[in-house]
Amino acid sequence: MKNIKTLNAEQLFHPRGIAIIGASQDRNRIGGHSIYATLQAGFKGGIYPVNPNHEKVQGLRCYPDVSSIKRPCDLAIVAVRAQLVPSAIEACGKAGILNAVVLAAGFRETGETGDTLEQAMLYAAREYGVRVIGPNCQGIVSVHSGVFAAFGSVADELSLRTGAVSAAFQSGGFGYSIVNLAEASGVGFRYCASSGNEADVTMPELLDTFLDDPGTALSFAYIEGVNDGRSLMRTGWKSLELGKPLLLWKGAKTNTGAQAAASHTANLTGSYDIYRTAFETCGILEVNDVEQIVDLSKVFLTGRLPDGKGVGVLGISGGSGIVFADEAINLGLDLPRFSDQTTKALLEVVPVFGSVNNPADVTAGVFNDLTVLTKTIEIVLRDSGVDQLVLLLASMSGDPATQAALAIAAESKKTDKPVIVGWSGRRSRAEKAYATLEEAGIPILPTPVRTANAAAALWRFANARKTVRTSQTALSGAGRKNLAFGSGILNEADSKRILTDFNIPVTREVKVSANANSIQAAQTEGLSFPVAVKVLSVDIPHKSDIGGVRLNVGDEDTLKIAASEVVENARAAMPNAHIEGVLISEMADGLEMLIGAVNDPTFGPVVTLGLGGIFTETLRDVSFGIAPFGVEEARRMISRLRSHKLLESYRGRPALDCEALAILVSDVSQMAHALGDNLVELDINPVFVGHRGEGVVAADALVSLK
Amino acid sequence: MKNIKTLNAEQLFHPRGIAIIGASQDRNRIGGHSIYATLQAGFKGGIYPVNPNHEKVQGLRCYPDVSSIKRPCDLAIVAVRAQLVPSAIEACGKAGILNAVVLAAGFRETGETGDTLEQAMLYAAREYGVRVIGPNCQGIVSVHSGVFAAFGSVADELSLRTGAVSAAFQSGGFGYSIVNLAEASGVGFRYCASSGNEADVTMPELLDTFLDDPGTALSFAYIEGVNDGRSLMRTGWKSLELGKPLLLWKGAKTNTGAQAAASHTANLTGSYDIYRTAFETCGILEVNDVEQIVDLSKVFLTGRLPDGKGVGVLGISGGSGIVFADEAINLGLDLPRFSDQTTKALLEVVPVFGSVNNPADVTAGVFNDLTVLTKTIEIVLRDSGVDQLVLLLASMSGDPATQAALAIAAESKKTDKPVIVGWSGRRSRAEKAYATLEEAGIPILPTPVRTANAAAALWRFANARKTVRTSQTALSGAGRKNLAFGSGILNEADSKRILTDFNIPVTREVKVSANANSIQAAQTEGLSFPVAVKVLSVDIPHKSDIGGVRLNVGDEDTLKIAASEVVENARAAMPNAHIEGVLISEMADGLEMLIGAVNDPTFGPVVTLGLGGIFTETLRDVSFGIAPFGVEEARRMISRLRSHKLLESYRGRPALDCEALAILVSDVSQMAHALGDNLVELDINPVFVGHRGEGVVAADALVSLK
Repeated sequence: MKNIKTLNAEQLFHPRGIAIIGASQDRNRIGGHSIYATLQAGFKGGIYPVNPNHEKVQGLRCYPDVSSIKRPCDLAIVAVRAQLVPSAIEACGKAGILNAVVLAAGFRETGETGDTLEQAMLYAAREYGVRVIGPNCQGIVSVHSGVFAAFGSVADELSLRTGAVSAAFQSGGFGYSIVNLAEASGVGFRYCASSGNEADVTMPELLDTFLDDPGTALSFAYIEGVNDGRSLMRTGWKSLELGKPLLLWKGAKTNTGAQAAASHTANLTGSYDIYRTAFETCGILEVNDVEQIVDLSKVFLTGRLPDGKGVGVLGISGGSGIVFADEAINLGLDLPRFSDQTTKALLEVVPVFGSVNNPADVTAGVFNDLTVLTKTIEIVLRDSGVDQLVLLLASMSGDPATQAALAIAAESKKTDKPVIVGWSGRRSRAEKAYATLEEAGIPILPTPVRTANAAAALWRFANARKTVRTSQTALSGAGRKNLAFGSGILNEADSKRILTDFNIPVTREVKVSANANSIQAAQTEGLSFPVAVKVLSVDIPHKSDIGGVRLNVGDEDTLKIAASEVVENARAAMPNAHIEGVLISEMADGLEMLIGAVNDPTFGPVVTLGLGGIFTETLRDVSFGIAPFGVEEARRMISRLRSHKLLESYRGRPALDCEALAILVSDVSQMAHALGDNLVELDINPVFVGHRGEGVVAADALVSLK
Repeated sequence: MKNIKTLNAEQLFHPRGIAIIGASQDRNRIGGHSIYATLQAGFKGGIYPVNPNHEKVQGLRCYPDVSSIKRPCDLAIVAVRAQLVPSAIEACGKAGILNAVVLAAGFRETGETGDTLEQAMLYAAREYGVRVIGPNCQGIVSVHSGVFAAFGSVADELSLRTGAVSAAFQSGGFGYSIVNLAEASGVGFRYCASSGNEADVTMPELLDTFLDDPGTALSFAYIEGVNDGRSLMRTGWKSLELGKPLLLWKGAKTNTGAQAAASHTANLTGSYDIYRTAFETCGILEVNDVEQIVDLSKVFLTGRLPDGKGVGVLGISGGSGIVFADEAINLGLDLPRFSDQTTKALLEVVPVFGSVNNPADVTAGVFNDLTVLTKTIEIVLRDSGVDQLVLLLASMSGDPATQAALAIAAESKKTDKPVIVGWSGRRSRAEKAYATLEEAGIPILPTPVRTANAAAALWRFANARKTVRTSQTALSGAGRKNLAFGSGILNEADSKRILTDFNIPVTREVKVSANANSIQAAQTEGLSFPVAVKVLSVDIPHKSDIGGVRLNVGDEDTLKIAASEVVENARAAMPNAHIEGVLISEMADGLEMLIGAVNDPTFGPVVTLGLGGIFTETLRDVSFGIAPFGVEEARRMISRLRSHKLLESYRGRPALDCEALAILVSDVSQMAHALGDNLVELDINPVFVGHRGEGVVAADALVSLK
């Protein structure tokens, strides 16, 4: 099979000509709708209906097959039924039409026969160098070019506003609904794509294409699941590098949601927690409804990002400021105290009924004297603690609104800091004001809550650009060693040996034979009492549950008794287990944590961290990290735990050794990465975290390999 | 001072005449704006400008004072400056104008002088029987009557849609912004009121008035804080009884928010956690943005409530169903499996590419054959597990949309179950469909997420009506005994004695003198070792911190040593503390919990429950209950803890005695209630929760009384 060519956005979204295979006269049919739409939308290239049964379709010359077209043609819309698609793709390739959008359903999503057809289609695509969107998709739209390689309601939306937002979605009907609503709220679009079964072109590749497109400033996607989580993460890092935000709406978060996904697309759906971790790790901005897409598009398209989390707020109604503050602080923004200089300057300007705190209330008095607004904006923007300015104008309208808009536009020009207006006034009562702000590129959001959300997203993205370290080499899979350390479930001693290879401290221990009499003082030499005594067997991964563990054994006599007890208990509970011996280890002390790793089908090795003991599962307080990662990311994992305060100094109790824990978590991630595809799962439970400076130690471990 | 008359909604919102004290020719001034607005809005009663300096104002006869009016007049708009307000109120009372809206600022919110003026105004109001809205407010609007006793942007909104929603807010500018946005999204209004400083009429009284109004079906309020939390709760219970939902937006949730509130209104701002608990307890529905107010108004105004949490979902796009399911399940709804009968019937109707699971995907095939939609609606509505039906129509438009709307409207008529449509199509492309649904009273929501939110609110309210037990007698303050058990901080023994009076089990214990030699075996008779030994002193509330506690004392010799140690440690750490003796108590075992109570300035006695030990403050996993309450509410408090799973059976460990804990928590609430105003705070820390059947026991207690 040949090399896969990179998706050519120019050909796909700005084709010189479009062939419609399965062209129809009837615009209510798939093969007719896109011809009609593209004709109406003013596409400048050639439109070539293909159908052996017609001479003309919708007034255009109709070709019997694609090879008869003989004109520059870069895109085929494949509207024939599933069975005919593989040969249609082959014909496209032979005719030099190297991009196809396959609208038909009846492939992998319907079962085995469909899957075979999908494989045949993909084989033809690879063999003849055709890149395929779909199958089972609602198609693509290139708004600037008037390309509507699509059917259904989107193909009726022929006067979509052009703009710099591109979008892709794993549910065509729902995705184009989002586009529809967002457009109605003022968002201008560039490229849209429904990705369908993603037999060839996948969601990450589409997003990558959008990022490379100079005409796209922001992309959003609706996904239910991707097959290759790491490539999705690479698009996140790329979006940070390029400064083009990537908004992502993840569907199928709950089990019921995921069930529906299974019956809807054939994509794998990974766990939502891991997706969220991946988004945070690579700077993807998660959104949850259409309003957010609209609002974030507005604020990001200004091109301004804040330098820090400080927001200065000026309002004409106290309530708006309070509601903004509630939401902003909740989202990680800061409303800093204004500097003494700022406060002093504001006091000279703001009316006595107002407030010069942040959020400042300049009062409805600005209706009478708009220089108050101009001056306060200027003063607050000068404050070095203010990284972005938010103006809350309530329902201001008419001439005062126009004057306010002019003042804001003039002051905004003098700064690079983001300036956002929260304004619930009706456009019809403030047409000129709206136009003034829009012309000045100042985003207007309808409520203080939505304004706070948008301001927080600006800072989240700006902060991710500063703090997120791209680790593309590691995450491309390079460096994964797929180390072989045996296979299957390893016993505690063997599991800990791997840990030791990765510098992970384990409890000092001695392995002795299962015969209690063989325990000699010499063998436990170097270990100080009290010790833990555990039966050693790959067949007994959960040894505590069957009485295979004795803790706090205080002297040698008790040790002998304990050793024979754990072996006897194991033999009684699991007569067929192969018992390899007894492990005697020093007792450790500190806070019990659990560190584990799984090999996620979507994201590969993922490290989990949580409280140990009964708390892990009862509190469900766990954080995740996509392996491998450094100490910085491990620190973030710790701080994401609700229970992280247990590690801090508290009422005179000294702080615990967070730093050693972070190093250990990072080392586990290196280990999980190195084990690569050989890793099934691993549990280090418990890890004891001592007081600061005392370090951490793994007291038990269970590694499972392929 | 005379009795306060109940607010007369008829007089306030439908006055026979309105006097405007401080009438102005200039409609940009407070005294001019409301005259102009009320004139324009078509108010049918008399409008009587009052101003000794004019003969005519805005074409109307102007009166020198209110006593000259001599016509039926029920409402005064007081637009003079603060200093003149008390005498204006007196004049109103004398002239029989018994309702006033005071727009002027310059009262309590500005400091001491303003506070004196506010008291003078209130005195006049009480003396002459006038009820006052404000001062420092933006006024009231009665949309059906054309009363605009208001100024600012709302007084420009003269063609507000009439409807059955009434609203009140503690920030006029922000509140009227909400009204503005909600109205633009289709909400019709009845009464609106900005409550200002609430010197006389408070928020709960306004809401109570709305609930009594036959023309109001739903109320919402924006509050920053109320003085009397219990009266707010009574409005919640009343809303449940009457079946008229009360939506509440709480501002000033964070500390910064609360700071801004302090500088904005003079209202007390209680802790947000306690407010939320109060809302849950009495069925108030909390909202957080304007969209929710719009959406909830739509679904509640249909008058239909679901019988259970089951939602049946029919969609034409898989993605919408998935997104709806994600949100709905997260919000406590259930998407039950359809019954076998339903599934069988659906299989006969739904196209093969679709899905007959819940959410069902009837596919875009319904565009071609709308009987599919009619039949599937009928089938799903018949399923007894389906309490409400949600239809997700994506961007359907044109004729298919009209047909779908007709089908939905016809099917909806045959059922009492709520039917909600999620639809992102443009109104302009489906005018007739929208009109058909609106006429049939079927709410249309723009996105699946907002649809889920609205459906969840329906169930939350319906469920609250079923489950919430009103406890008006107890919560009116009746039954509060203000029991006297001493004053100040009580020592552990005295604290526990009060607990015992309220049937709360405490550890068995003996108090001995501080002289270790006095400890006789006889004194500890009846207690079994191991015991705890604690120094007893009201001056040492946190005795562990200074070495005043020895746990697990195993025999009598050690006991003597321990007793003298705790006394010595106490003397060393706090030489001036009065040491009353030593408490010897049996050790208890189980999960450590903390139960406490505070006397909240807004809500009175409030009980708190959380994990004990270091977990309380580090995990911040605490739930609240407004005292007093029964065992049922105590169970809910337990289940609201994230850590409640610690109480359940887990990996073979038996379940803990939840029921005994619930009884204890309820008993603590009875105790806090009985102590009434004498309570300052109490801590029972720890309470040990044993295995099921073993009960609970308070091991330490600290009661602080006035």
